[in-house]
Amino acid sequence: MILPLLAALALIITAAKLGGWLSGVLRQPVVLGELLVGLVLGPSVLGVFTQPYFAAAHVDTTLIELGELGVIFLMFTAGLEVQVDDLRKAGRPSIWAGVLGVAAPLILGSLALIPFGYDLEAALFLGIVMAATSVSISAQTLIELRRLRSPEGLTLLGAAVVDDVLAIAVLSAFTALVTGGVGGLGGLAWTLGRMGLFLVGAFALGTWLLPRAVDWVEERQWAISQPVLSLVVVMVLTFAWASEFVGGVAAITGAFIAGIALARSSLKGKIERGMHVLAYAFFVPVFLVGIGLQADARALSAEDYGLTAWLIAVAFATKLLGAGLGARFGGLPARSAWRVGLGMISRGEVGLIVASVGVANGLLTPAAFTGVVLMVLATTIATPPLLRWAFREPQPPPEENAHA
Amino acid sequence: MILPLLAALALIITAAKLGGWLSGVLRQPVVLGELLVGLVLGPSVLGVFTQPYFAAAHVDTTLIELGELGVIFLMFTAGLEVQVDDLRKAGRPSIWAGVLGVAAPLILGSLALIPFGYDLEAALFLGIVMAATSVSISAQTLIELRRLRSPEGLTLLGAAVVDDVLAIAVLSAFTALVTGGVGGLGGLAWTLGRMGLFLVGAFALGTWLLPRAVDWVEERQWAISQPVLSLVVVMVLTFAWASEFVGGVAAITGAFIAGIALARSSLKGKIERGMHVLAYAFFVPVFLVGIGLQADARALSAEDYGLTAWLIAVAFATKLLGAGLGARFGGLPARSAWRVGLGMISRGEVGLIVASVGVANGLLTPAAFTGVVLMVLATTIATPPLLRWAFREPQPPPEENAHA
Repeated sequence: MILPLLAALALIITAAKLGGWLSGVLRQPVVLGELLVGLVLGPSVLGVFTQPYFAAAHVDTTLIELGELGVIFLMFTAGLEVQVDDLRKAGRPSIWAGVLGVAAPLILGSLALIPFGYDLEAALFLGIVMAATSVSISAQTLIELRRLRSPEGLTLLGAAVVDDVLAIAVLSAFTALVTGGVGGLGGLAWTLGRMGLFLVGAFALGTWLLPRAVDWVEERQWAISQPVLSLVVVMVLTFAWASEFVGGVAAITGAFIAGIALARSSLKGKIERGMHVLAYAFFVPVFLVGIGLQADARALSAEDYGLTAWLIAVAFATKLLGAGLGARFGGLPARSAWRVGLGMISRGEVGLIVASVGVANGLLTPAAFTGVVLMVLATTIATPPLLRWAFREPQPPPEENAHA
Repeated sequence: MILPLLAALALIITAAKLGGWLSGVLRQPVVLGELLVGLVLGPSVLGVFTQPYFAAAHVDTTLIELGELGVIFLMFTAGLEVQVDDLRKAGRPSIWAGVLGVAAPLILGSLALIPFGYDLEAALFLGIVMAATSVSISAQTLIELRRLRSPEGLTLLGAAVVDDVLAIAVLSAFTALVTGGVGGLGGLAWTLGRMGLFLVGAFALGTWLLPRAVDWVEERQWAISQPVLSLVVVMVLTFAWASEFVGGVAAITGAFIAGIALARSSLKGKIERGMHVLAYAFFVPVFLVGIGLQADARALSAEDYGLTAWLIAVAFATKLLGAGLGARFGGLPARSAWRVGLGMISRGEVGLIVASVGVANGLLTPAAFTGVVLMVLATTIATPPLLRWAFREPQPPPEENAHA
C-alpha cells in the first residue's frame, strides 16, 4: 500500500522542481512554477491523483498531512530568516509600510468586496489573505535586481517582516474569534488574553531556551545521530502543537516563533542547512504543489471569474496604496515609497497558508480559495517585471552574488 | 486534525533520541534504546497511541506510512556506506563468512524451528530473518572497540555487506514466490528472471546514471532550492517504487541499490549529510520506534515465550557457527574466525525490516513478530559485551576517533 505514495511523492517533487526551474529560466520567482505545476497536476487540468491507482491508497489524505508538515517547516525557515535587528535597521519607513500595507487591504479590501457578494466574515478573511505579503518573493526579486540592500530593499525587508507578524496575529485573532465560538466580552477577553499570553510566553521562553538547548546538545557530542537537528525538529513540532493546543493560535505561528528564536543561535548555519534539506527537498514541495492540487479552476463559474478578477484588482490597489503611503509617511522620498509599494504587491506562501487555514475552518468556499490561488499567482507574476520597471534607469554596480 | 500527529511525532523523536542516548551511556548500540522506547510506548507497556486523542486522528496509519518512508531512507543510507571496493579488500574470508553466515541460519535455523510448531513457510521466513546481520551495529561496536580496521574488522564489514545483499536477495525471491502466487516451473522462472533482470538492470543503470545525474544537476547551479538533494530523494523513491512495481522485489532493495549507486558519487559527502538529516532527524526514529510500537509483549502466551527463547538460541548458534566456520574456511586463523562469528551475531534493522515485510504479507503472526523483535533485542544487547570479551587481552593503540 506504500507504493502509490512513493510514486506520488516522486512525481510531485520532480514536477515541483522542474516547474520551479522553468520559472527561474523565465525570470520568474521559483515558487510560481511550483504552484502552477500543482494546478496542472490537480483537478484544474490533469486530475492525476484522482486516478484509481492513487485514490485506492488514499494518497490524497497523506499528501495533505505531509503538506501540513511542509507549511510548519516552511514557516520555521521563514522565522529563521527574521533577525530582530533587521526591523530596527529599516526603522520607521518599514514599520509604517508594514502597518499600512496590512491595514489597507484588510479594511479597504474587505469593504471593496462586500458590494460584490461576499458576506462580512468572508470579506474580512479575504482582507487578511490580501494583507499577507511574501518575504521570500520580495527578497528573491530584489536579489535578482541587485537592490536587496538599497534603502528601498531594506525598507521592503523590514516591512515584509512587520507584515508577516501582523498578518499572522490578525489571522490568529480572527480565527479564534470566528471559530472559537467566543461568547460575549468576557469570552473575547479570555481568547485574546490567552493568545497574547501564549505569544509573549512562547517568544520569551523560545528566545531564552531554544538557542541554549541546541548549544547544550551540540556540546555534549552524544553518540546518537543528528542530535541537534532532531532537537530542532522536536522543538518546531512542539511549538506548532502548543501554539494551537495551548494558545489557540495557528500552529504555523508557533513554528514561526521557534524560527525567530533560533535565528540568533550560534548554530544557525547548521540548523538552516539541515532544515532546508528537510523542508525544501521533501516537505515544502508537497505543500506548494498541494496548494495547486486543491484548487479547481474548472469549478469556477463565469460569475466566480468576475469576482476573482475584482479580488485581484483590489489586492493590487490596496497593497500599493497602503504600503506606498506608509513608506512615504515613514520618511522615504516619493519615488522610493512608490517602489516599496510595488515591491510589497507580491503575495506568496503566507497568503496561501492563511487561505488554506480558512478552507479548513469553513471560512472560505472552494471557489474563493481558487480565487485566492489565482490572486497569488497574478501578484507573484506581476511583481518582478513591475519592480524591474520601477528600478529601471541607473544600472547599479554588482552588489552581491545573485545566487540565493 | 494535524495536531495529534504533531504531538505524536514530537513524542516519538524525543523518546527515540533519549532512548538512544541512554543506550549509548550504558555502552550499548543506540538502535537498541530506540527499539526499547518503542516497546515502552507501545501496547506492550504504555499503549500511548491507542489513547482517544491519537486514535481519533488515525495517527497510527500515518505513523506506519512515515515509518515505511523511514525504512526506505534507512536502506538508502546503508547502501551509501557500501563501497564495492570494501568487498574486494576483505576478500575470501568475508565472502565465505557472509555466505555461510546466511546459509546456516537459513537452513539449520529453519530446520531447528520446524519441530517446535512452526510450519515450513514460517520457519523458512524466520530463517531469512535470522540470516540478516546489521552492518551498522557490527561497525558501531568495532568503532567503539577501535578494531574496525583490524583483519577481523574488515572481514566483518565485508561479510556484513555480503550478508545484507544475500539476505535481501533471498527475501525478495521468497516473497515473490510465496506471495506472488507463482504457478509451476514457468511461473517460477519468470518471477526469478524478472527479479534478476531488474536487479542487474537497476544496478547497472543506477551506477551509471545516478552519479552522473547528481553531478550534472550540481554543475547547473539552478536557482531552485536543494536541487541535488531533491533529485536524490526522487531517485530513492523512484528506485524503491520500481523495485516492487517493475521488478517484483522489495521496495527497500531499490532504495539500497540507489544508495550503492551513489556511494561512489563525487557528491557523496553532501548527499550523506543531507540524507542523514532527512533520515535520522525525522523518518528513521519513526520507523525504529514504530517497530517497538507494533510488538505486543503482553499478547505472548507462556508457550510463545518458550518458542521465542528457542528462536533466540537458534539465532545465536547458527550465526556463530556459519559465520565462524566461513571465516575459518576462507583463511582466517581460528581465533580470528571465532571473533568474526561473534561479531556477526548482532541483528538489527535489516532483520526487523524483513520481519515487518513478513507481517505485511501475512507470513508472520504477531506473536512471531514480537519474538523476532525480542530476538533482535537479545542479539543486539549481547554482541557488544561478547566482542569486548573476545578482543580482551592486548590493549590496542588508539586507532581512530571513537565518534561515529
